[in-house]
Amino acid sequence: MSLDRLGERGLIRRIRRTGVAARASDVEVGIGDDTAVLTVPPGHRLLVTTDLVIEDVHFRRTSAAPADIGWKALAVNLSDIAAMGGIPRWALVALAVPADTTVDAVDAFYAGIEDAAAPHDVTVVGGDTSASPGGWMVNVTLLGVHPGAPRLRSQARSGDMIAVTGSLGASAAGLFALEMGLDRARDRGVAPGRLAEITRAHLRPRARVAEGRWLGSAPGVHAMMDCSDGLATDLGHICRESGVGARVRLDRVPVAAAAQVAADALGQDARHWAVGGGEDYELLLSCDAEAAERLAAGLAEATGTLLTIIGRVDGSSDEVVFVDAEDVPVTMRPGYEHFHG
Amino acid sequence: MSLDRLGERGLIRRIRRTGVAARASDVEVGIGDDTAVLTVPPGHRLLVTTDLVIEDVHFRRTSAAPADIGWKALAVNLSDIAAMGGIPRWALVALAVPADTTVDAVDAFYAGIEDAAAPHDVTVVGGDTSASPGGWMVNVTLLGVHPGAPRLRSQARSGDMIAVTGSLGASAAGLFALEMGLDRARDRGVAPGRLAEITRAHLRPRARVAEGRWLGSAPGVHAMMDCSDGLATDLGHICRESGVGARVRLDRVPVAAAAQVAADALGQDARHWAVGGGEDYELLLSCDAEAAERLAAGLAEATGTLLTIIGRVDGSSDEVVFVDAEDVPVTMRPGYEHFHG
Repeated sequence: MSLDRLGERGLIRRIRRTGVAARASDVEVGIGDDTAVLTVPPGHRLLVTTDLVIEDVHFRRTSAAPADIGWKALAVNLSDIAAMGGIPRWALVALAVPADTTVDAVDAFYAGIEDAAAPHDVTVVGGDTSASPGGWMVNVTLLGVHPGAPRLRSQARSGDMIAVTGSLGASAAGLFALEMGLDRARDRGVAPGRLAEITRAHLRPRARVAEGRWLGSAPGVHAMMDCSDGLATDLGHICRESGVGARVRLDRVPVAAAAQVAADALGQDARHWAVGGGEDYELLLSCDAEAAERLAAGLAEATGTLLTIIGRVDGSSDEVVFVDAEDVPVTMRPGYEHFHG
Repeated sequence: MSLDRLGERGLIRRIRRTGVAARASDVEVGIGDDTAVLTVPPGHRLLVTTDLVIEDVHFRRTSAAPADIGWKALAVNLSDIAAMGGIPRWALVALAVPADTTVDAVDAFYAGIEDAAAPHDVTVVGGDTSASPGGWMVNVTLLGVHPGAPRLRSQARSGDMIAVTGSLGASAAGLFALEMGLDRARDRGVAPGRLAEITRAHLRPRARVAEGRWLGSAPGVHAMMDCSDGLATDLGHICRESGVGARVRLDRVPVAAAAQVAADALGQDARHWAVGGGEDYELLLSCDAEAAERLAAGLAEATGTLLTIIGRVDGSSDEVVFVDAEDVPVTMRPGYEHFHG
């Protein structure tokens, strides 16, 4: 059945019946009224973020299934809350699709939302649905709460160490493989397991929510943000907002093993994927130099996630400089930016 | 200059410099970090709503200027907060436009947002920007607060009076005139002043924020919602959520004078515009029968806005029935619904 037979009201009834609309104790009114009615716990700040996810800009229907689109639309917002050290709570999901879209595809989209939301106890409390004259368009708004002081981009200080969680480059590797075609990538020698790993990193990124909460309340962490536009671009944001520069040891940037294997097979540079590719949704932070080792050990113990020190904040500069092991600057490609061709 | 020359970062810098991003005392962090950081006043509930506004679904570029699109995208959300009796506070604006869109057009869009937001002290605290492969797509999320108990759709009780603020039909009249062409409408005898009035009602609707706050805290008001899909459809929502029916006197429905004049000139039925047209953003409510006259007088004194009693909640039915002055049922066209052709 397609949506033009089900109708908007039928669709909303369907969404309300699913798990995504389940009630939480801090949701007084969810889907079905003019607004949601929510309770922010006393003493908590409110966090809110929104992201557009648009067909043929952010994804292609040929490689991203409806469930992937739903998952990622929520995950990128979870990552923003994680970057503040916050607790994600409530989502609003706006979806526009062509009128001949099947109900199965829309169900799968909301199932993808639910799969990404459930581990974090996030409740879908509202949204909007519309016909689309073109492709799929999604806008997810995510609200979170924070019991203390959120970590901002503007809090980097001269002499801070720069560190990043997990590893980088797998998402860009996955995008590269999807764009060239998975069959061709396999023919060029990328093993199916590795291929699954990098495409999953691109289509189903995991937000570092637990890591963000741990780091966000750990003494010594100063600036924090999520790596969505690529390490070089995102570190540039921190530097600009903090009025500082940064010097990053390129050889210390943690490149995802699967990205390295894929790059070797496909004749690409995994380090460029790691630095310029974006969409890995790792956390990037600056911290007291003397706290860095303690933070890395503590994060690993609390969450099992690696924290790698990759450079240092330079208060005498306003540029992000990548250097090699001999401290010689290396030129990097810029990260992704909308509107530029 | 077009956006592909300015770039995404240039655009965000530009938005941050404008009035829409100005700081309010309850905005700790606005545009420019991973999330906004906000303070909900103690003892207040949080309200949140979101609406998609898509080219060739919700508006046409030939009749809606960028400033109109911005205005309406914010106004429809203001109306949702008004319908709960809440206080609108913070907006997130997501905008996707073709890469060759001029910076002037985007500036005008944000100026329209600002024009609609400023009278209510609403601050734009975040958003997203993206290239669009098709037309314009806007998603505005609006957050508000409520010091007491929000008015819900589900609170209508048997025997309640049904009332509506202001008048209905002007927006549908404006849409009709825009679709037929303003020159043709003028040639058919609609006076330029009336034409301006109905097109403005459609392109620049005013949300009943002050009225919603007054009614939302007035004793005797039970269910409340905004009239966005048309009186018949919206009253149906209240009845379904409350488990009741309603009987509406069609001759008491307040038809906008300009809609009546335009309908007469164009051979249309203004009452159908008023009942089935939608997008007037008046408030629709149910209230204690004995409170109705007092509420109408009080609202007029507090805000200057008319409140008209148009019918009664029928606890023995689950249908919305329109009747004429002799209590004989009249068949009405259904309101607008997405996905249906």
